[in-house]
Amino acid sequence: MINAVGRDIPDVVLAETGKTVFQGSRHFDDYTYEKTAVKARARIGGEGSKLEKDLQEVLRKCNAHDGMTISFHHHFREGDLVAMQVMQAIHEMGFKNITICASSLSKAQDELVPMLEDGTVTHIESSGVRGKIGEAISEGKLQGIAILRSHGGRVRAIETGETKIDIAFIGAPSCDEYGNCRAVGGNSNCGVLSYSAIDAEYAEYVVVLTDCLVPFPNFPADISMTDVDYVLKVDAIGDPEKIATGAARPVTDRRKLMMAESCAEFIAATPYFKEGFTFQTGIGGAASATALCLSEKMREKNIHMGFGAGGMSKPMCDLLDEGLVSCLLDTQDFDLPSIENLISHPKHFSISTKEYADPFCKGAVVNKLDFVILGTLEADVHFHCNVVMSSEGELMGAQGGHPDTAAGAKCTIVITPLVQGRIPTIRNEVTTVTTPGETVDVIVTDYGIAINPQRPELLEAAKAVKLPIKSIEELRDIAYKICGEPATLEFEDKVVAIIEARDGSIMDVVRKRKDKNLIALSTK
Amino acid sequence: MINAVGRDIPDVVLAETGKTVFQGSRHFDDYTYEKTAVKARARIGGEGSKLEKDLQEVLRKCNAHDGMTISFHHHFREGDLVAMQVMQAIHEMGFKNITICASSLSKAQDELVPMLEDGTVTHIESSGVRGKIGEAISEGKLQGIAILRSHGGRVRAIETGETKIDIAFIGAPSCDEYGNCRAVGGNSNCGVLSYSAIDAEYAEYVVVLTDCLVPFPNFPADISMTDVDYVLKVDAIGDPEKIATGAARPVTDRRKLMMAESCAEFIAATPYFKEGFTFQTGIGGAASATALCLSEKMREKNIHMGFGAGGMSKPMCDLLDEGLVSCLLDTQDFDLPSIENLISHPKHFSISTKEYADPFCKGAVVNKLDFVILGTLEADVHFHCNVVMSSEGELMGAQGGHPDTAAGAKCTIVITPLVQGRIPTIRNEVTTVTTPGETVDVIVTDYGIAINPQRPELLEAAKAVKLPIKSIEELRDIAYKICGEPATLEFEDKVVAIIEARDGSIMDVVRKRKDKNLIALSTK
Repeated sequence: MINAVGRDIPDVVLAETGKTVFQGSRHFDDYTYEKTAVKARARIGGEGSKLEKDLQEVLRKCNAHDGMTISFHHHFREGDLVAMQVMQAIHEMGFKNITICASSLSKAQDELVPMLEDGTVTHIESSGVRGKIGEAISEGKLQGIAILRSHGGRVRAIETGETKIDIAFIGAPSCDEYGNCRAVGGNSNCGVLSYSAIDAEYAEYVVVLTDCLVPFPNFPADISMTDVDYVLKVDAIGDPEKIATGAARPVTDRRKLMMAESCAEFIAATPYFKEGFTFQTGIGGAASATALCLSEKMREKNIHMGFGAGGMSKPMCDLLDEGLVSCLLDTQDFDLPSIENLISHPKHFSISTKEYADPFCKGAVVNKLDFVILGTLEADVHFHCNVVMSSEGELMGAQGGHPDTAAGAKCTIVITPLVQGRIPTIRNEVTTVTTPGETVDVIVTDYGIAINPQRPELLEAAKAVKLPIKSIEELRDIAYKICGEPATLEFEDKVVAIIEARDGSIMDVVRKRKDKNLIALSTK
Repeated sequence: MINAVGRDIPDVVLAETGKTVFQGSRHFDDYTYEKTAVKARARIGGEGSKLEKDLQEVLRKCNAHDGMTISFHHHFREGDLVAMQVMQAIHEMGFKNITICASSLSKAQDELVPMLEDGTVTHIESSGVRGKIGEAISEGKLQGIAILRSHGGRVRAIETGETKIDIAFIGAPSCDEYGNCRAVGGNSNCGVLSYSAIDAEYAEYVVVLTDCLVPFPNFPADISMTDVDYVLKVDAIGDPEKIATGAARPVTDRRKLMMAESCAEFIAATPYFKEGFTFQTGIGGAASATALCLSEKMREKNIHMGFGAGGMSKPMCDLLDEGLVSCLLDTQDFDLPSIENLISHPKHFSISTKEYADPFCKGAVVNKLDFVILGTLEADVHFHCNVVMSSEGELMGAQGGHPDTAAGAKCTIVITPLVQGRIPTIRNEVTTVTTPGETVDVIVTDYGIAINPQRPELLEAAKAVKLPIKSIEELRDIAYKICGEPATLEFEDKVVAIIEARDGSIMDVVRKRKDKNLIALSTK
C-alpha cells in the first residue's frame, strides 16, 4: 500500500508488524488512547536495600526467559559498557529469541553481531543501528524485521504498550542502594538519563548497573527508586573517554562556515527571529557552527533565545553562560563542557525524552520550537530526508530526534553540503524516507537555499535579504551535473527493517542489500 | 468479619466497597499487580498554548458529567481557593453525584456542606475531613460512604485504578501557557506540589488553575506539560496568609518540652541513633520540639542526620542550614521559612507523594526512615492509634502520612499527653483504628514511656538510660484514674466512612453519630 510519502509498504510487512501506513504527520493529532497497564510490585515496610552482586542472579530474579524484551539507553554512546555486559550474561545463560529495545545502538555493541547469527537476538528496535549491527541487518542477518524509530516514537511505542519491556537495564553514573539514579556524581558521568526515564516507568523489572554507589538519598534523582527493582554494583559502566568528547574544535571548513552563515542569515530574516525565540541545533559541523553565526546576530539586534533544546555541546552552553539563552533543555550531552555546565548552571535543565519529543503526550518541547537545524544524509525534491541509510543502501544512521523536531518546529531547516563523498545529497528520491517533506521547510546547501513551496512566506522573507535562493530542482540539477545521476540501488525482496514514523505507522521499509558479487554479475 | 486489629467490618460494607478486611501491615508486601491504564491524548505539532479563559468552558471541554470523579490537592491548606471555585462552577452547571477525591479537606471547603445536602457531591475520598465537612459526614449527610486514606494509600488507590479520576484540578503558584507548574515563583507559593503529582499522572483530564502565568518553560516543573490539558488563569488560587503561617513560636509549654526531652533521650539511647540516621517529625508542639531537643544530642555526639522527611517547618530547615542534616525530603510546607528554604537551599528537595509513601511502588522514602515522631488523638493498650475521630465520635482529623511512616520506620514513636481536654488519650480501645499497633513501637507521654512488647530490644535500650518506662496498661490506669474510664459512645448502625489501610483494605468503619438528644433521652 502506498503511503503519504509515496512509498509502497508491502502487505506482508503490514500483516507481520500489525502496523498501518504513514498518513501524514498530523494524522494522529488529538488521538485518544489508553496507555498500557504497567506490571508493578509493592515493597512495603522497612527493608532498605536492593543491592545485588551477581548479574546472572539478577536475571533469574527478573524472570529472564526466551523471547523476552530487554531495553538499554545510549547515554554512554560509544563508551557504553552496560549493554554488552548484560548481553554476555544472557548469552552465557543460553537465552534465545531476545528482543532488544534500545534508544540507540552504535559500534559499542558491535559484538552483538554473533548473537544475531546464533539466534540469541532475533529482534531489534532502536533509533539507529550504526557500525557492524547496521551492516549485519542490511545483510539480512537479523531473523525479525528491525524497527527504527525516532526518540519520541520510542516513548510512544513503550507507553502505548506496542513494545512491552520485560527488563530495563539502566547504567547510572551514581546510584544509592535503593535505586535513585543520577547521571552525574560518579566516575562515568553522562549528564542526563533522559532516554531511560520511559523504560523505568514501563518495564516490568528495572535493573540499575552502577560503578558508583552513593549514600541514600541520591537526589535529585533522574530515575526514582519507586521504579527500580535491583541495583547491581559493577566495575565499569562506561569508558569516560568515549562517553563524551572534550570540547569539539571550532569549525574551520570554509564550506561549512559559509552554509552556517547563510543559515543564520536566513533565520534572522524570518518573522520567528525575535526576543524569546526557541531553537535547537544538531551537533554536526555546519549545524553547530550555525549557533555561533546566529549568536552574532543576536548580539547585534539584542535578541535573546528563550530556550535551546536537544543534545548539548559547548557552543550552546557558552551562549547560556553569556546570557544570550534563557535556559537549556537537555536530552543528551556530547562533550565534557556540557556535562559540567549541566551540573553548575541552574538554568541548564535535564528533560526526559517524553518531555522532549513524545508525540502521544499532551504536549512536548518540540512543539514549542521555532527553529530546528538538522543535518541529513540525503534529501529529495519532495523535501523528504533520509538520515539512516547510506546512498549505498547500508543502515548506518539514526532517526534520533530528526522527525520529532521537524514535525514540531515552526521552521525546520536542513543544512547539508550539496554533494557528500562524490554522491549527490539532493536527488529525485531519497533511498529511504525517515522525515517527511511536509515537515521540512528549508534546505540550506553550499550551492544555495531551497524553500519548501508550502511555505511562501519564508520564501518572501529570504528574498527580502537577497539570499541565494534556488528551487529544490535546481539544487538537484547542480548536484547531478557534478556527480551524475545516482544509479538505482539493487535490493532483494526481503524487508530487513522498517522506518517507523513517530506515530507508529510505517514511513518506509529497508530491504536486504543485494550481494555485491551478484550485482556485479548481473551488470556484466 | 473481624480484621487484624480486631474490628468487625460489616459484610454490607465489604460488599458495597468491594474491599477486604485489613490482614496486617505487611500482608501485601511483594504483591504484584497491574497499574491501571491511563486515558491519554496525543498533541502533535506546533500549536503552543493551552490557555483557557472560562472555567465552565473548560469543564465542558473536559467532558464534565454527572457521576464524575474530580480531584484536588491541599497544599494551600486553609487558604485554598481552588476547590470551592471549581465546585461552585460545577454546582452552577447542575452536575450531580460527584465524587471528590482530595488529598485532604479542611475548613477552606466548609461551603461544600450544602452541596452534600443537595446531592451535588455524593462521595468523598480524602485523607481527612476537618471542619464542617467532618461534622456533616458524621451526621450522615453524605449519600455514599466516605473513604479516608493515608497519603500513600491515596497514591495506591489512584495507580491501581480503584479511584479513576476524570478531571484533576491543580492549583499552581506559577505556570506557563503549556502547563508546566511550579509550587514557587508566584504570589501564592506553597513550596511543593507533591500530592498532585499522582493526579496529573493518572487523571483523564488535567486542568491547572494559576494566578501567575510565566514564560515557557517554567522549569524545573513540579507538574509537567506532558500531563496537562488546559491552563486557566484565575484571579486567586489561595490566600497567602492562610497557605503558610509565619514561623511558629518556640514551644514553651513545660509539659510538652518535658515530653520532647524524654523522647529525644529515648532516641539517643537506641541503636538507630548513629551517623546518618533518618528522621521525620510532625509539626505538633511536642513532636516539633523533639527535633530541637534531639539536635542538642546530635551536636553533643557529633552525629548528623542523613535525611529529614515529610512536612516541613522552620526547625528542620534550621538544622539543614546548620549542617546537622544532610538533606530534606519535603512533601508539604507549613510555614514561610520552609518555602524560602526550599527555594534557596540546594539540599532541600521536593518529593512526590509516591516517592514519599506509596506502599504499592518499588520502594518509598518511608521505608528508609529510622525514626518517625507522630502525634495522636487516642492510643490504646494494643498500641493502635486514632488520628481521625474525636473521642466524642466526630470526624475531625486526617490520616495524613501517619500509617505510612509508622509502617515504614524502624522506630515509630507516638508522642502525646496522657490526658487531652480531660479525656484519656491512652485507653482500652481507641474509638477508631487508623494506625495499627503492630507498627507503633513507643508511646511517649507526660506520665512515662510505654514500649511495645514486640520490641524488647528498645525496652532494654530505654532501661539502660533510666527513662521513666511504664507498661501501656499502667499508663491507661493513670489516665483513667485522672479522668475516669471513658463512657462508650453510641452510634447508629449506618456506616458513614471507612478508614482504609494503606494497602486498600478496611482498617475500621465510622458510624453515624447518634443524635445527641436521643442519647440524652436514652440515658434518662
